[in-house]
Amino acid sequence: MLFDLLAVVGVGLIGGSVGLAAKARSAARRVVGIGRNTDTLRRARDLGAVDEFTTDPAVGVRSAEVVVFCSPVDLIAKQAREAAGYAMPGALFTDAGSTKGTIVRALDGKLPDHVRFVGAHPLAGSEKQGVEYASADLFDGRVCVITPTSSTDPRAVDWAARFWQSLGCEVKQLTPEEHDLALATTSHLPHMLASLLAGQLPTKWQPFAATGFRDTTRVAAGDPKLWAAIVRENAAALSLALERFDEGLQELRKAILKQDDDAVTDILTAGKRGRDALGS
Amino acid sequence: MLFDLLAVVGVGLIGGSVGLAAKARSAARRVVGIGRNTDTLRRARDLGAVDEFTTDPAVGVRSAEVVVFCSPVDLIAKQAREAAGYAMPGALFTDAGSTKGTIVRALDGKLPDHVRFVGAHPLAGSEKQGVEYASADLFDGRVCVITPTSSTDPRAVDWAARFWQSLGCEVKQLTPEEHDLALATTSHLPHMLASLLAGQLPTKWQPFAATGFRDTTRVAAGDPKLWAAIVRENAAALSLALERFDEGLQELRKAILKQDDDAVTDILTAGKRGRDALGS
Repeated sequence: MLFDLLAVVGVGLIGGSVGLAAKARSAARRVVGIGRNTDTLRRARDLGAVDEFTTDPAVGVRSAEVVVFCSPVDLIAKQAREAAGYAMPGALFTDAGSTKGTIVRALDGKLPDHVRFVGAHPLAGSEKQGVEYASADLFDGRVCVITPTSSTDPRAVDWAARFWQSLGCEVKQLTPEEHDLALATTSHLPHMLASLLAGQLPTKWQPFAATGFRDTTRVAAGDPKLWAAIVRENAAALSLALERFDEGLQELRKAILKQDDDAVTDILTAGKRGRDALGS
Repeated sequence: MLFDLLAVVGVGLIGGSVGLAAKARSAARRVVGIGRNTDTLRRARDLGAVDEFTTDPAVGVRSAEVVVFCSPVDLIAKQAREAAGYAMPGALFTDAGSTKGTIVRALDGKLPDHVRFVGAHPLAGSEKQGVEYASADLFDGRVCVITPTSSTDPRAVDWAARFWQSLGCEVKQLTPEEHDLALATTSHLPHMLASLLAGQLPTKWQPFAATGFRDTTRVAAGDPKLWAAIVRENAAALSLALERFDEGLQELRKAILKQDDDAVTDILTAGKRGRDALGS
């Protein structure tokens, strides 16, 4: 058993899966869920994602060796600052937020000395929301990016890495800024394209949207509020990624209009090469 | 048994699946495969997709009541014109091409009187290529668009509809032009976005491309040559769709740069609504 008590703040798809994975893999003896909605927390307990729950962070974090913040990205820093006052000496704080720069900057060197924070982002999820979709193997074999800074205690970095590994993740380390640049391209940009595509489909053409369209737009079913917060937190990197994408799009459109078969084939070949490199 | 002999021209993923489905659903007593590559044809026979095969269209179509062209879109019209001279009186020609305008215009009123052509596009497929991936249920519950014109014999339209239904398809009718406009948005545009996205991903960021990126770019693994032909045949509708998409992209990018949360949320909400309407 890696830890005695794990606290999970925000028990939705991700937080619920953290709880289920920690218990299934004997990473924590007990899991306490912290949230605002008693119904959601009770459901999480009924599903076995947490052993107990509370709406009071002071009570929830008191005896926890690890506290994981799985809330929307725009709440994490605030919640972590609030919880820090109640945390036990040496507690590890980590999170599962999809952006890292804003969160890490808001917490780095700004928490009381007895708490160590290591930003993290497990690259696992779903367009589905809610603890009902949580699963013990959500993190299995998935990359988790941890984003310590030069001021992060190296023992806390090790500890955070071991925590995420214990849930099944393969841990990789980036700076918060590298993380946000990479994820702007690998996650936030595809989400924007999917949303635009799905939002532009006229109703009369819905019957003609087959598996290709469905795959390409699947992520657009994600929660608009959660994603609007991600967009806001990563606005600079994302608008850069959109600009770069748009250059490619203009180039392709020109090639199509000029009937430049070779240029079109080159673009499609580069796409196939890129996609094939990822596997299925 | 709907037909005695079905001829399939081009025995890859789609042609092979036509053969398998026709036999599994007793739509045809025998299936003959026509192609250029003997190895491919033999593999199709070994897999049970065709009963016999030939590289000579004259031999292949001679006794076939239905001939289905499952070749790349830029070959279909030429192959159909060649085969028509050998076809038996009353034979039905249909196809599985992803574009319809060019093919239908090249054949409408231009085949000998004893052959009836009804353009078709079963909305089924995969980024995989080759008869190895063919399956008897590829068309099960999938829409097949048929695109007769005002000069198409209504009995041939019925016959084509029954043929595609017999493979498991739900048949819908559009004009060739409507088909190409709709598919530019529902299939060709998503493919272009997926290709651009996959082609732009730097190698160093590949580890950070999770399921969202993989779903969004899955179709980019398709054959660049097949898709370059589709792009060429549907260039006008596709560049229109790209232009329209680009307007949405510019709007989103402006909203992100202006930190206009409401506008971003509106775009994401429209996307979610559109995607949710399609089901999983």
